[in-house]
Amino acid sequence: MSQGESVASMSDIRQLVTDLPGPDEAAAAAAAAREGQLTKPAGALGRLEELVAWLAAWQGRHPPRIERPHAAVFAGNHGVAAQGVSAYPAEVTRQMVANFIEGGAAINQLCAVADADLRVHEMGLEEPTRDFSAAPAMEPADCARATAYGMAAVEDNIDVLALGEMGIANTTSAAAMCHALFGGEAADWVGRGSGVDDTGLARKVEVVAGAVARHRAAMTDGLEVLRHLGGLELAAIAGAVLAARLKRTPVILDGFACTAAAAALHALDEGALDHCVVAHVSVEAGHRRLLERLGKEPLFDLGMRLGEASGAVLAIPLLKAACACHGGMATFAEAGVSGPA
Amino acid sequence: MSQGESVASMSDIRQLVTDLPGPDEAAAAAAAAREGQLTKPAGALGRLEELVAWLAAWQGRHPPRIERPHAAVFAGNHGVAAQGVSAYPAEVTRQMVANFIEGGAAINQLCAVADADLRVHEMGLEEPTRDFSAAPAMEPADCARATAYGMAAVEDNIDVLALGEMGIANTTSAAAMCHALFGGEAADWVGRGSGVDDTGLARKVEVVAGAVARHRAAMTDGLEVLRHLGGLELAAIAGAVLAARLKRTPVILDGFACTAAAAALHALDEGALDHCVVAHVSVEAGHRRLLERLGKEPLFDLGMRLGEASGAVLAIPLLKAACACHGGMATFAEAGVSGPA
Repeated sequence: MSQGESVASMSDIRQLVTDLPGPDEAAAAAAAAREGQLTKPAGALGRLEELVAWLAAWQGRHPPRIERPHAAVFAGNHGVAAQGVSAYPAEVTRQMVANFIEGGAAINQLCAVADADLRVHEMGLEEPTRDFSAAPAMEPADCARATAYGMAAVEDNIDVLALGEMGIANTTSAAAMCHALFGGEAADWVGRGSGVDDTGLARKVEVVAGAVARHRAAMTDGLEVLRHLGGLELAAIAGAVLAARLKRTPVILDGFACTAAAAALHALDEGALDHCVVAHVSVEAGHRRLLERLGKEPLFDLGMRLGEASGAVLAIPLLKAACACHGGMATFAEAGVSGPA
Repeated sequence: MSQGESVASMSDIRQLVTDLPGPDEAAAAAAAAREGQLTKPAGALGRLEELVAWLAAWQGRHPPRIERPHAAVFAGNHGVAAQGVSAYPAEVTRQMVANFIEGGAAINQLCAVADADLRVHEMGLEEPTRDFSAAPAMEPADCARATAYGMAAVEDNIDVLALGEMGIANTTSAAAMCHALFGGEAADWVGRGSGVDDTGLARKVEVVAGAVARHRAAMTDGLEVLRHLGGLELAAIAGAVLAARLKRTPVILDGFACTAAAAALHALDEGALDHCVVAHVSVEAGHRRLLERLGKEPLFDLGMRLGEASGAVLAIPLLKAACACHGGMATFAEAGVSGPA
């Protein structure tokens, strides 16, 4: 996180969410009209057809294109890691960022296959958030600055934005956010993350339950949940989701931590994630439950739990395929193919 | 289907299935060993890791590669189309083959995105199989020739083979094959195919039930099921699956008709499809049930029902991604990333 980005306040961010642009209905209608003429039985490409209509609606053009896909990975450190809630030591966040920069991580290989540009954003790794079991994770100004940083990270004129994160202990943060946003029991939202053992899992449940109880009264909306229980990389993801909406850039969300960050916006406005698809359902316990609450059907269920935008970037070739079919297929009339008898 | 391909008899084909090569256990072990060293929590790439081990085992090399993916679509006509079991007239098979050749179909766009070579094989479109509600669909020599044709269609030195079909009325054929192979009620296996109405659906159930009852005594093994109820394109797919096994070429199966064709081999040897993954589960009713019987977990569930190898080719970028991660990621040691605490 560099100095000098535009700084918004929490209330500026709230204000933006009250006036989100909607879908381009004309572009979606144009997609549907062409879809019905292509040489296949109606609906035979299933979700590929839905993705085309969704891309048209949120890119605001027909036909939609996936020629400039971007991936953005935000990395942050969490004070709550001191509670022993992760299988890995906190320094792994920085080590993995170095690995991203060197090109040695999964996300680098996945971006190469998808022909997607990758941007890695370090969110003050030397300054972790506070341990939220004792205090709010962030001051309002810090949360707003991280959100604004994420907003500024969304470049102009990209066709789709795949979002992801890296941050030791951030599934604890995500579980706490979900527990605060959607209720239930803490244990409903807590999973093994990168591979914590049974003792660590029990500790994680205890930390999440305690933190949500401690901060409940102060968490008056989704942004306050993000501030009390989230992290800098999660705030940045929320900001990127918001900026993408304003720039007519469809978003692909990744796994549990990434989706939990976006859920803070959903709590402010139930339509705030309409420009987002969720790429995959993670094996992390809370993710499937979260997707149900958000009304999001994942594209893949591949038993993944890596983060780093890895699932989100896997969806880029699927979007390219959907656009290629829609744009390149012949119509029944062009191909001289008979319709239904 | 051109003249001059090597002709095998039904018993030659049976003989080949009795002596199928197994997986390369050393290559699979090498994949597992490297997987454990890569900079991610163990198992965090889920099915991508399984796919790498599977590719290594069936390509017989480590690391596995997906540099030369091929797609093969076999097209055939079915006498049973005369029973009014399809929403589309039988001439659509030929029209769609022309569309494939002109590059206007979904499969052409999908192969372009996957950078896969596409081969389209016309299986005697002017000579449909006999209406299997009245007689066996094929004579033994015709079934064997079509199977041998499919075997010959598998080129040397390809990294993965995505298989698919085109054939008006062939979901009726597939449903009949599944009913014969796996029992249950005819209605369990019959769906709307390309979009038949309720009347057509009822007729389809009646045709399938009647045909399986008529030929039951004569269908003494999987190949006889294929001969009595299958089609030329389905026999060719079975042949291609078999030849791919002999050539150490992993196979991606597509939807209901394609998988039903492969199931004829599974009936001869339960391990005959171990070198195959099923790309997706179709919305065609029988496909999910068939995959359960075959013990195959699909990679995708995207509401597709097009055939043409469309689902199979969608899986190629996923295989490329899996290989790219496996081959390109840094190890913990190389990247200086700490392991679990």
